[in-house]
Amino acid sequence: MSLAVDHACERIRNIPMSDIIEVVDLARDDPDVCKLWVGESDLPTPEFICDAAVRAMREGHTRYTYSRGIPSLREALADYHTRLYGTPIDVERVSMTVGGMQAVMQTFQAVCEPGDEVVVPSPAWTNVFEAARIAGADVVTVPFRFGNQGWRLDLEEFFAAVTPRTRVLVVNSPQNPTGWIMPREQMEAVLEFARRRGLWILADEVYHRLTYEMPRAPSFLEFCDPEDRVIATNTFSKGWAMTGWRAGWAIAPPSLGLVFENLLQFGTTGLPTFVQHGCEAAIRHGEAFLQRNVARCRTGRDVVCDALADVPGLRFERPGGTFYLMVRMEGLEDSKAFVIEVLRKARVGLCPGVAFGPGGEGHFRICFGVDHRLLEEAMDRLTGYLAAA
Amino acid sequence: MSLAVDHACERIRNIPMSDIIEVVDLARDDPDVCKLWVGESDLPTPEFICDAAVRAMREGHTRYTYSRGIPSLREALADYHTRLYGTPIDVERVSMTVGGMQAVMQTFQAVCEPGDEVVVPSPAWTNVFEAARIAGADVVTVPFRFGNQGWRLDLEEFFAAVTPRTRVLVVNSPQNPTGWIMPREQMEAVLEFARRRGLWILADEVYHRLTYEMPRAPSFLEFCDPEDRVIATNTFSKGWAMTGWRAGWAIAPPSLGLVFENLLQFGTTGLPTFVQHGCEAAIRHGEAFLQRNVARCRTGRDVVCDALADVPGLRFERPGGTFYLMVRMEGLEDSKAFVIEVLRKARVGLCPGVAFGPGGEGHFRICFGVDHRLLEEAMDRLTGYLAAA
Repeated sequence: MSLAVDHACERIRNIPMSDIIEVVDLARDDPDVCKLWVGESDLPTPEFICDAAVRAMREGHTRYTYSRGIPSLREALADYHTRLYGTPIDVERVSMTVGGMQAVMQTFQAVCEPGDEVVVPSPAWTNVFEAARIAGADVVTVPFRFGNQGWRLDLEEFFAAVTPRTRVLVVNSPQNPTGWIMPREQMEAVLEFARRRGLWILADEVYHRLTYEMPRAPSFLEFCDPEDRVIATNTFSKGWAMTGWRAGWAIAPPSLGLVFENLLQFGTTGLPTFVQHGCEAAIRHGEAFLQRNVARCRTGRDVVCDALADVPGLRFERPGGTFYLMVRMEGLEDSKAFVIEVLRKARVGLCPGVAFGPGGEGHFRICFGVDHRLLEEAMDRLTGYLAAA
Repeated sequence: MSLAVDHACERIRNIPMSDIIEVVDLARDDPDVCKLWVGESDLPTPEFICDAAVRAMREGHTRYTYSRGIPSLREALADYHTRLYGTPIDVERVSMTVGGMQAVMQTFQAVCEPGDEVVVPSPAWTNVFEAARIAGADVVTVPFRFGNQGWRLDLEEFFAAVTPRTRVLVVNSPQNPTGWIMPREQMEAVLEFARRRGLWILADEVYHRLTYEMPRAPSFLEFCDPEDRVIATNTFSKGWAMTGWRAGWAIAPPSLGLVFENLLQFGTTGLPTFVQHGCEAAIRHGEAFLQRNVARCRTGRDVVCDALADVPGLRFERPGGTFYLMVRMEGLEDSKAFVIEVLRKARVGLCPGVAFGPGGEGHFRICFGVDHRLLEEAMDRLTGYLAAA
């Protein structure tokens, strides 16, 4: 008998395993490894957030609720954005999603027809590529340029990648893995271009609060009209140390309300009810924690950048946002083999650059959103390994 | 400026709102309404399940984990199926999903190419129709027959609906909304037919334990080969009173492991970590609760069936499975208007038959998986209303 997988949908069965997951699964539960591979804090979720979820669970909030999220949480998110961006964001634009990941997936499901093209600057978080492909779209990448001024996106190159088949421009800012932040003037130019060409913008704002030279990153939401074709995706994961809660949200044009309602209803039927009560506590009372978390990430960034500054053969830009450092390594041709060797010999878990698509090979990525002592230990191990290699 | 939704994907923006949700949203939070509309118990989740989730949360299980589910939970589910069906079900076949809903969605994403057909007996839980459409497939329905022997599926009609474009046969047994259970001999014939014609079977087993004349419903998993193109979808929602936890699972051929891994990774990146610890408690220690829940549903069934037995113009079969009663009402032509009137005048929340697709109009559905006193009150109100109407 033939294998069932041979009869699965061709474009789905040809998706390779995530390179990050492949590396992480080598030592996911090994306590001796300094794990800097995945994009998450090493802090547990703050107690006041857990308390709110536990209280809700004990009060019986264990039954079905609204697919787009409980109204009080959607209100809290609308208020949060209104405050943050100084422009009213109506609650009708807010939908809760299973992590930022589902927000991305549902955006592509909402707007892509089979064969449409999605343009993404790369290196990038390649989960976006695969979500687009699962939704039937093709992915076109545009290279970030890395020079003496760090990572840059040339808008002429970005726009030149657009064809009559293009449907979506993806802008992840602050950007995983480069730490690049799109300047406000570029955002205005992108919106203007998208309007003229009838394109959608997927604005992945997952790191919008993890910034070190400014209080927050610029956002399309600050200046776009509600019915502009802009969908901003976000998550509780990064700012509030809630990666394992699988809770995110999307801000979309109000006319897309029913579309998101349906995609959520028929995709997953929403988030656990008590989880949403935890999220509401995070957004209403989590600002102090978030500020401490950002300060901790800044310390982590400086520990890592200082430790690697004088290592021969390494080049990087001190990132202004995210909690990642993308390091270019002279002569590196097989980043997956390299990080597996670093894992085995130095007991440091890095993320291979190849996991970030075109332009990623030749690099490795470090997540510095963890305790500075762990980072110091990891940098000792890594620089020791590199000096001996 | 045009509305953004006019530029969304055509087949997505044409999905209508769920008729169930439309009715429920009229009085979701009104405590005076006897709510029998949605498929859920009125019990809170058992304390020992909540305790396990809370303990995990307090122990810091708030970070990323495996997209397909934590290994101990997948093992527990493999053991559960192995015990239940008396045939080994390997852990590699098990994937955790965001409710049974995501298991259905991912099945269609895994196997359907755009334009493929999915054949579904109807009336049915129409979320399956919409999930298939979102995945790009077309839905073909085959009517259940309702006669003196209750609800029946004519396999000749089922098979006659298959065309060269057919990709999936959907078998939901015990069936929502009819309570019909597919006999083992029919299952064997369906598997034999699917093998011969190269079709997939989506076996929605969400109600497999809610049975009243037999300890559990027959299952394809009892007799199919692991690499048969059979995907069984299931949930913690119904048996363990966990609708709000959004936790389900799929049992698929082992060769589909990476396909599910990827669809989960790039769709939602798994379930909340601590939620999975609650699920593990449910599956390992939840048998006594489940048995009590089934006994409670049997009482509920009898309360409802006895109350409606002699009401003129109503016809139904006392269901052998699920916690639904599908009632045919003579002369009923607009079931949505009818249930809205019953909601307003009698304060009873029913589900309109039209929500279940072809063959559903002319009926209403009652969920009897709730406290018998609530059901007695609701039946008093409903029969009073019908007598006066």
